[in-house]
Amino acid sequence: MKFVCEQNDLNTNLSLVSRAVPSRPTHPVLANVLLSADENLQRVSLTAFDLSLGIKTSFAAKVENSGTLTLPAKLLNDIVSRLSNGEITIDDDAGEFVATITSSFGRYQVRGMEAEEFPELPAIEDGQTIYLAPDTLIEGLHGTLFATSADETKQVLTGVHLTGKKDGLEFAATDGHRLAMVETVHQLPEDGADDDDRLESEIELNVTVPARALREVERILGMRQSPNTDQSAPLVNLRFDSSQVVFEWGDQRLTTRLLEGQYPAYRQLLPNAFIRSITLDRKQFLSAIERISVLTDQKNNIFKANLDSVNQKLTLSVEAKDVGSGQESIPIQFITGEDIDIAFNVKYLMESLKNLNTQEVQMDLNHGLSPVVLKPLGGSKATHLIMPVQLR
Amino acid sequence: MKFVCEQNDLNTNLSLVSRAVPSRPTHPVLANVLLSADENLQRVSLTAFDLSLGIKTSFAAKVENSGTLTLPAKLLNDIVSRLSNGEITIDDDAGEFVATITSSFGRYQVRGMEAEEFPELPAIEDGQTIYLAPDTLIEGLHGTLFATSADETKQVLTGVHLTGKKDGLEFAATDGHRLAMVETVHQLPEDGADDDDRLESEIELNVTVPARALREVERILGMRQSPNTDQSAPLVNLRFDSSQVVFEWGDQRLTTRLLEGQYPAYRQLLPNAFIRSITLDRKQFLSAIERISVLTDQKNNIFKANLDSVNQKLTLSVEAKDVGSGQESIPIQFITGEDIDIAFNVKYLMESLKNLNTQEVQMDLNHGLSPVVLKPLGGSKATHLIMPVQLR
Repeated sequence: MKFVCEQNDLNTNLSLVSRAVPSRPTHPVLANVLLSADENLQRVSLTAFDLSLGIKTSFAAKVENSGTLTLPAKLLNDIVSRLSNGEITIDDDAGEFVATITSSFGRYQVRGMEAEEFPELPAIEDGQTIYLAPDTLIEGLHGTLFATSADETKQVLTGVHLTGKKDGLEFAATDGHRLAMVETVHQLPEDGADDDDRLESEIELNVTVPARALREVERILGMRQSPNTDQSAPLVNLRFDSSQVVFEWGDQRLTTRLLEGQYPAYRQLLPNAFIRSITLDRKQFLSAIERISVLTDQKNNIFKANLDSVNQKLTLSVEAKDVGSGQESIPIQFITGEDIDIAFNVKYLMESLKNLNTQEVQMDLNHGLSPVVLKPLGGSKATHLIMPVQLR
Repeated sequence: MKFVCEQNDLNTNLSLVSRAVPSRPTHPVLANVLLSADENLQRVSLTAFDLSLGIKTSFAAKVENSGTLTLPAKLLNDIVSRLSNGEITIDDDAGEFVATITSSFGRYQVRGMEAEEFPELPAIEDGQTIYLAPDTLIEGLHGTLFATSADETKQVLTGVHLTGKKDGLEFAATDGHRLAMVETVHQLPEDGADDDDRLESEIELNVTVPARALREVERILGMRQSPNTDQSAPLVNLRFDSSQVVFEWGDQRLTTRLLEGQYPAYRQLLPNAFIRSITLDRKQFLSAIERISVLTDQKNNIFKANLDSVNQKLTLSVEAKDVGSGQESIPIQFITGEDIDIAFNVKYLMESLKNLNTQEVQMDLNHGLSPVVLKPLGGSKATHLIMPVQLR
């Protein structure tokens, strides 16, 4: 194997795959990245795989001899990232799976392992395929990932659930205390060619994808050069069967196992009707909660909210025994329904308000212990459900 | 006590003094900040003190009633920093050392302790005084603080040693492996008024000041609005006796105990003459060491340097058993003396090269185990001494 490439290309692609390198590999070769140089294609591909999440990417290079080799991911990344831009040559002429990395100033030799030891990324033979606009995928992931559970014992809740709808996708995440849901609409590419083949919305999609893999999808898609304006950006090809899903776009491919188990029937949690509804300035609401949280920290994270329809304001308050107390009032822009006292965990409201990105939010309530629903006013089709806590 | 002030003033001054609040206070009141409002002066002062380092600062406010109170520093800081700019009222009308903090949206009550419990900052009655330009002080501190020891058992080495010279100050720091020294020249203020009173260079200054306090001096001086251009910036008043030193400028005062014990006679370590001298591009040298360090990490942090006078280059190399090897060459701009092999700890050379800020550096050497001296070419009067390590 011998190839010459730009430091910048190698560096970018190494950091792209490095997230799939396990920090505690179950087998030594998994701490390595697989390099594969193809003389015919004049391309080099990099692969990392922790047996659950796999990332493969490729880039153009002057390949003099085809070949494969695995090299320690961290060490290779550390060396390459510190080189300045310019040409780098990598060859394994030294034998014994040792790679020589040569740049204009220096020369490094790094011991690797043979490529045959590296496990193959799972391939999906008989799966189904849908195509998604990158921005649609980013919108759905951004709006739900924050609400996934970090508790590894609640396996299925550590992922985002994807459901195929007639004209789009539904993303949902819940950790048992709150639920975030985003409905996206398929964005048709403007050239309109072969749309029937590319958007197969009749496909029955019903999968739970690990949040860890989806954070990488979000990150890699976010690294595109002109994220929001490029209408001709390639669609993301999403291929899946009952145990795996593959995201593929441009030169990148990400594979992950799916989470097993029945995902909660979350739509049943959404109340059919509300007897109270208010509209608030999102940033005002968030700032007030952030200040109040200074005192709630000391007391189960709970604060009390009082809805005052006469004075058209929402008053947040907290009492921290032996420390002090705090009180904040926010003007309400629109209100229906009667006054109420209700208590919340500061964390869930704060994270929801941070995640929404409209100027105003609508908050729908029933009684003090029924689920509360937050929605952005005039933004994407997002729905956040938050369980209140019992007032003492 | 009752005063009205700008959130921005209170916030800035709180974060200024907060570094002197101990993380594990030996007495509860030390976790508090002392507020003192003066109706005659229309000023509020804040004081924090961990019994070694004390910081006091004051700012203008509308004081309605004079008074004093101590309040929990972290809690007060957390609340005030989250308020948006605008007027804040603080009063203790609620009694029982409870302060009420009122802003346009919210109202907080925080329990404090009475001011009488707060220890007084040490005052220097019969000390001596010198005046320093802030930039001179910053230059001396920046050039030496990095070389102080972090090892608390080597008490006197955890500080910077200050020596008064005929027309300036000498700053020195050493951790036993390397030494950093900066000689500064008194910068006379342009108005020239009362210079005789202000620059008393005949005073015998010979003190070791804890690095922790000096980092705060550097930080606070660095927060000045126009650091390098304001010729009329007030001089820093440095007052000291045998056990304490006080830095005072503008509305800020920082007091610290001095470190006891004989400071090493560091000037004796500097060789009188060198038989080798080279000039290098600082950034090239630093980048090469940073890359090499990726492999030295695994082997005592040591790399080898070979001085090659024929090819006018310095070659750095490292061998990491079972992992790999690296080699970098840097062109030498100027060289006197014969070829040599010498080994260094990567950390000391890297930190020195980062601290110097000229384009080129001069490196003077004798034999493989004699101290090496690094100097900036055309910058401030800084001298770094580094001990090589034995080649195996």
